[in-house]
Amino acid sequence: MTLSRKRSDELFLRATKVVPGGIYGHLAPAGGLPKVFPHYAESAEGCRFRDVDGNDWLDFMCGYGAILLGHRDPEVEEAAERQRREGSVLNQPTARMVELAEAMVERIDFAEWAVFAKNGSDVTTWATRVAREHTGRRFVLKAKGAYHGVDAWCDPGFGGRIPEDRKFVGEFKWNDLDGLRSLAKEHEDDVAAIVLTPYHHAAFGPSEMPADGFWAGVEELCREKGIILVLDDVRAGSRLDDGGSHRLFGFTPDVACYSKALGNGYAISACVGREDLRRGARDVFLTGSCWNDAVAMTAAMKCLDLARERNVVAKLDTLGVRLSKGLRDAGAKHGFSFSLTGPPAMPFPWFDGDENLYLLQQFCELCALEGVFFHPHHNWFLCGAHEEATIDQAVEAASVAFSKLTAEKA
Amino acid sequence: MTLSRKRSDELFLRATKVVPGGIYGHLAPAGGLPKVFPHYAESAEGCRFRDVDGNDWLDFMCGYGAILLGHRDPEVEEAAERQRREGSVLNQPTARMVELAEAMVERIDFAEWAVFAKNGSDVTTWATRVAREHTGRRFVLKAKGAYHGVDAWCDPGFGGRIPEDRKFVGEFKWNDLDGLRSLAKEHEDDVAAIVLTPYHHAAFGPSEMPADGFWAGVEELCREKGIILVLDDVRAGSRLDDGGSHRLFGFTPDVACYSKALGNGYAISACVGREDLRRGARDVFLTGSCWNDAVAMTAAMKCLDLARERNVVAKLDTLGVRLSKGLRDAGAKHGFSFSLTGPPAMPFPWFDGDENLYLLQQFCELCALEGVFFHPHHNWFLCGAHEEATIDQAVEAASVAFSKLTAEKA
Repeated sequence: MTLSRKRSDELFLRATKVVPGGIYGHLAPAGGLPKVFPHYAESAEGCRFRDVDGNDWLDFMCGYGAILLGHRDPEVEEAAERQRREGSVLNQPTARMVELAEAMVERIDFAEWAVFAKNGSDVTTWATRVAREHTGRRFVLKAKGAYHGVDAWCDPGFGGRIPEDRKFVGEFKWNDLDGLRSLAKEHEDDVAAIVLTPYHHAAFGPSEMPADGFWAGVEELCREKGIILVLDDVRAGSRLDDGGSHRLFGFTPDVACYSKALGNGYAISACVGREDLRRGARDVFLTGSCWNDAVAMTAAMKCLDLARERNVVAKLDTLGVRLSKGLRDAGAKHGFSFSLTGPPAMPFPWFDGDENLYLLQQFCELCALEGVFFHPHHNWFLCGAHEEATIDQAVEAASVAFSKLTAEKA
Repeated sequence: MTLSRKRSDELFLRATKVVPGGIYGHLAPAGGLPKVFPHYAESAEGCRFRDVDGNDWLDFMCGYGAILLGHRDPEVEEAAERQRREGSVLNQPTARMVELAEAMVERIDFAEWAVFAKNGSDVTTWATRVAREHTGRRFVLKAKGAYHGVDAWCDPGFGGRIPEDRKFVGEFKWNDLDGLRSLAKEHEDDVAAIVLTPYHHAAFGPSEMPADGFWAGVEELCREKGIILVLDDVRAGSRLDDGGSHRLFGFTPDVACYSKALGNGYAISACVGREDLRRGARDVFLTGSCWNDAVAMTAAMKCLDLARERNVVAKLDTLGVRLSKGLRDAGAKHGFSFSLTGPPAMPFPWFDGDENLYLLQQFCELCALEGVFFHPHHNWFLCGAHEEATIDQAVEAASVAFSKLTAEKA
């Protein structure tokens, strides 16, 4: 199979004239995607998409996680359409906002309240401000390399910052409880929040699960020192446990942030919290022109319900394990020590010893030629529209890729 | 007419249990809306909406400006639905992103590039970072009381801030050119940006148009000192001039931010800029899970086209002048010195001498009893679905309100 990229390249050339860098952020090809990857997409359905040159792909990114049930899930679309016929952005919230807040408080064990916004960053940044308001302290501690959004206190870019943006942000190595403790000690009585993802899903490297005792230690430190534990569940939320990813790892945050999978492609984010944070939450300003959008809230509500009904978390885990085993075995057959790291539902691929991601880039490019969209430096995402047959198809494509990789190596 | 608020109150009571403060941000009733105003809306069409108790309203807020053409404009909805059938949030942008960027660069005279996000705040804050990156300077100067978003450098709330958030933010009084000049002098060679709305549309007070020479003076200062002039056109954009509000006032910014009216209820924001800011724009990180959403981009594209085709800017101006004259005359007839301030398309109501907004609150409450939704401390918004007859209906309702206000006064 060869891949046409004619229209993709034409569009990108047009884009470079009217968009700085052509494509920005996590979708930017400048981020180092293999040359055969398309720059622009045309359409999608279920777990497949078509690029602008008419190439069809088996999708293992699912809108970088935004798509939980599958692209254009008919039941989500129908519910959204019903609400759309009533209205979307009005002068007041609709009953949908109350219903969605009630649903999240009911599902997430520690949550007593919820608020809604549009982006993950809206809520992660707001949560740090709520922690500062609640504690009267200044420092926010985070894991090195963890992604929490586009704001200046945490963004992974290099431009547009002044030193004050991070004057009260401290970093420690994921899983390094001693490092975290001494950082907290260093800023004794001035740490407002510890912000963490449920496991470490940094780009450009294997995912790291929490070490034994890590979460218990973090929680203990927070309780002892009165530090607010903010769970950034923006990327993992809805895929690991439908009551919040903290349940999979056995800890309880004070505040948790969700977005991505929440609306199955409708832009919405949420922050939930414990009762004692309610006053702080009320007192930190929060709003946006379309934040009361009833259509996105309806989509989120339906998506939460369907995920439960269809047992999506268990399904993604089972399919993820099948994918993981299939790829590992296929790699081994061709002499590669290849594995999927992190949770099966959103794995990060890894060749042992491939620190510069050289093999991984080649592997993903070869899979692309077989019509499978495996990202070479970001974790993948499974969705509810994947089936055993699609997993097996991907494994078969990967086998071809591994065999070519062997040939290239020889 | 009496207004039932039973279901509105029930929903609000439920909300107070699961949402801090019940309703947050600009929609919060705690902001001081008259008691008859509904807390929750049910549906909307054109320039009318229905609240959850079945009361019908003639709408003069239009989703706080998000609705430019009218609620659920059939042509926007049809275009959005066509795109929705293809897909929304994919692993790449779609051609819609290139087309929309091209359209904005074509329409906005000084713009050579465009980027897209979801909230107004996403782009106003990003623009200040681009200015810092471009200039290597730190200070952002803004007008006192101007709203530029929810971020800590500018939000109107009281909670969740540390002094460093505003260490490099300076404020001057709108229209006070001397004050601005001395502020710039005070931070000589360290001012990155001046951020301004096209006219001063603060809440809780009459709108202030730019004084003669104000914009020329601001522009001259920026050119002389190498300061980036950021136009925050989030609220006014698309209503005053379809090439950007700076055209109405005869100046040229370096960067301009849009949102609200851009997508007619679909969440999208944009920032456009001059050629020499392109490198800075490329180098400040910018992304979000649903920022490539092709449905919102399609809605925005259609909304821009329809606004031109239907000559919406001129229509809103004509209708706004009619409303302004009608209300002024009706007020005068009952002995009130009442006027609409600011541009006719998005006027702020004002009783002379009513500094505490006491009369204005009563007036808006009395208009509410006649089925007209006039906001008592935020500027109003006209939309393309208003007609002469709806304006006249509103003026008639206002006449009743003025007469009752006279009776109360007597």
